[in-house]
Amino acid sequence: MSILLKNVTLNDQITDILIQENIFKNISPDQSSYADTTIDCRDKAILPAFYNNHSHVPMSIFRGIGDDKELFDWLNNDIWPREAKLTPEMIYSATKFSILEMIKTGTTFFSDMYFCMDAITRAVADMKIRAALSFGACDLFDADKRKSEIAKINAFMELPNPAPELISKTIGIHAVYSASPELIRYNVELAQKNKLKIHIHACETAKEVADCRQEHGCSPIVYLDKLGALSENTILAHSVFLDDEDIKILAEKGVWLCTNPTSNYKLSSGVFMLQKLLDSGCKITLGTDGAASNNNLSMIEEMSICALSAKIQDNSPTAGTASDVFNIATHNGAKAFDINAGEIVEGKLADCILVDLNNHLLVPNYNLISNMVYSADSSCIDTLICNGNILMQNHHVDGEEELTANMKELSNFFKD
Amino acid sequence: MSILLKNVTLNDQITDILIQENIFKNISPDQSSYADTTIDCRDKAILPAFYNNHSHVPMSIFRGIGDDKELFDWLNNDIWPREAKLTPEMIYSATKFSILEMIKTGTTFFSDMYFCMDAITRAVADMKIRAALSFGACDLFDADKRKSEIAKINAFMELPNPAPELISKTIGIHAVYSASPELIRYNVELAQKNKLKIHIHACETAKEVADCRQEHGCSPIVYLDKLGALSENTILAHSVFLDDEDIKILAEKGVWLCTNPTSNYKLSSGVFMLQKLLDSGCKITLGTDGAASNNNLSMIEEMSICALSAKIQDNSPTAGTASDVFNIATHNGAKAFDINAGEIVEGKLADCILVDLNNHLLVPNYNLISNMVYSADSSCIDTLICNGNILMQNHHVDGEEELTANMKELSNFFKD
Repeated sequence: MSILLKNVTLNDQITDILIQENIFKNISPDQSSYADTTIDCRDKAILPAFYNNHSHVPMSIFRGIGDDKELFDWLNNDIWPREAKLTPEMIYSATKFSILEMIKTGTTFFSDMYFCMDAITRAVADMKIRAALSFGACDLFDADKRKSEIAKINAFMELPNPAPELISKTIGIHAVYSASPELIRYNVELAQKNKLKIHIHACETAKEVADCRQEHGCSPIVYLDKLGALSENTILAHSVFLDDEDIKILAEKGVWLCTNPTSNYKLSSGVFMLQKLLDSGCKITLGTDGAASNNNLSMIEEMSICALSAKIQDNSPTAGTASDVFNIATHNGAKAFDINAGEIVEGKLADCILVDLNNHLLVPNYNLISNMVYSADSSCIDTLICNGNILMQNHHVDGEEELTANMKELSNFFKD
Repeated sequence: MSILLKNVTLNDQITDILIQENIFKNISPDQSSYADTTIDCRDKAILPAFYNNHSHVPMSIFRGIGDDKELFDWLNNDIWPREAKLTPEMIYSATKFSILEMIKTGTTFFSDMYFCMDAITRAVADMKIRAALSFGACDLFDADKRKSEIAKINAFMELPNPAPELISKTIGIHAVYSASPELIRYNVELAQKNKLKIHIHACETAKEVADCRQEHGCSPIVYLDKLGALSENTILAHSVFLDDEDIKILAEKGVWLCTNPTSNYKLSSGVFMLQKLLDSGCKITLGTDGAASNNNLSMIEEMSICALSAKIQDNSPTAGTASDVFNIATHNGAKAFDINAGEIVEGKLADCILVDLNNHLLVPNYNLISNMVYSADSSCIDTLICNGNILMQNHHVDGEEELTANMKELSNFFKD
């Protein structure tokens, strides 16, 4: 399988790009080699696709339910009662629909934490996107529940992987307030033994940090470090409330911090210290969180809010530059999961988007990266290629009408 | 001229809507009356269009120039030298292109402050959108410049209005730090004499307020009030830094406050106190500011940032509700300029958008207003009708390819 992108704009230059199997094979102008598919890319620019580092993708089924409420009112009365009614088939359909949304908004990879891992894994394989999937282990400090959680983790570990090239398993630890130290240790050992990434919600709210200090006498970061959970194979979602000691540990250990600014604003959790963490040498990625608290999975919108938030927080328009934020959303997001992608460079995995340089939001085009971060929306994305497969072309994804109709029908079940 | 919208979704019910001339004439199901144009609106919902209450629309020509810089570095080195090179024909073309962007993102009205009023007026009339246009009077406290500014104001007042149904003239006062009290008084009298709205930048930055207190011994709001500039015919852009005395005056006088959150974040000016001002009885509208500091003219994106910002500021997810923000962006925006629109109600002016209920960002559809504020982007907007004229259908605006090609060519002149 090969794709030839003719006359595509890369870094303001027009060139040709040959994709062979799943790799950018040859980037040079005027190529005449045969390819199975040739795409005329005049007036289109190629960019890395986005790597969404934290999500709960099936939750798109709850998009727009119970907005503008206090967190626990929303969780207790809107989300948890509905989540309890989800069947594996609903999760399968909702995941496929969410992946459609990610493709439409330029994303080729997501790192997820949820349950019903079999359903989610099948959906990812069917949609041919990349994902790092974790079960969000959470025993609520109860020994019986711990047993059943460990059984689910082990079942997930034994689940056959239908697309090893695209899907990796990761170890999910819900959070220090919901997982016991025994469960955390079990997960850490499992991750080390199997060389898997660890995905944890950490320091999302001031309450989480205050409670941890009261219970364990230290911050969630110090506590997780004591339990051996922090390394360059760890991705911490949110990471809003960090003190200087935390930051030092995170930078030294090379832990990845995934910021989710829209969710943090919408739930009024707090503001991620983007520029300070960058300046401290921390490694940063970007994620949307679930669509129930965002309310979409668009990394384009997430980039904009990430950059804007950094500026207001530092009281400086020089904080959170477009190029830093774009790098965080693309190259860093791939790197955190050891995916050799996120850059349009020969030898890298062929994940990319083609954007329409005639879209009004990208005109004028003095600086394409600035336009993507501050101006673009999903209407700019024409084509998405993941692992050498064309998943969207001319704004259309195969089967999208059916996936959408399915989701509309499913959602009737959750209306009041 | 009449349009029949068949089977359109309005407030979750399917109905027909007859537009006659520029008015919603009949809203009821199963209409069989003849219409010049009939649109099949199955799977489309009708919503009010957006009313952008503060912009500098020609500045789209500078989109993405000098981002992520300190304000005065950006103005001195990037914007002002380029603005000095703008010709009336460039402003005409740039305005038409910006109106294209507004149509594509669902806006039927903008209130603007700029110069070359003849060029801007022609562009608005050609594009058939609504606008309230002001010349941004600014004498920098210099008597000679005041004379020439007054001459320009008077010339604008005498300029024939090619589309009185769509275009209103307003009186622009740049700001208290750039316009002398004499110029402000002249403008206030002119506005009162001609029953025109007054459009002023006020309290955008902490420096503006501190300087005003030092120079005049009071806040910009108290100062403007002393000069007679504040009434229900006044629209103040930005209004970030307000104290309790200011808020009391603004609520009592019924002054309209136009928030521009993206610009305030991007330039790190400060955060508008949305919920506090709503709770204090102030009247609020929404605007994008110019695309040089946004960097687009999308009111959909602006709504999302407005709501998110309100929540983080108040440390409460209940602040800045989707319904309040949607009302601010639509009904309030029309009301501030005495336009009998902003609601889909019989007898109101026929300004509206049709959104695609099969767009992934609007599915599921538990709450369309929430979806519009927190999830949607321009890809959701299929059709735009302004004053009974269809300006966009099936995502396409007549002549958009030419407008875009023009803007691309023009922008070559401003590249480094």
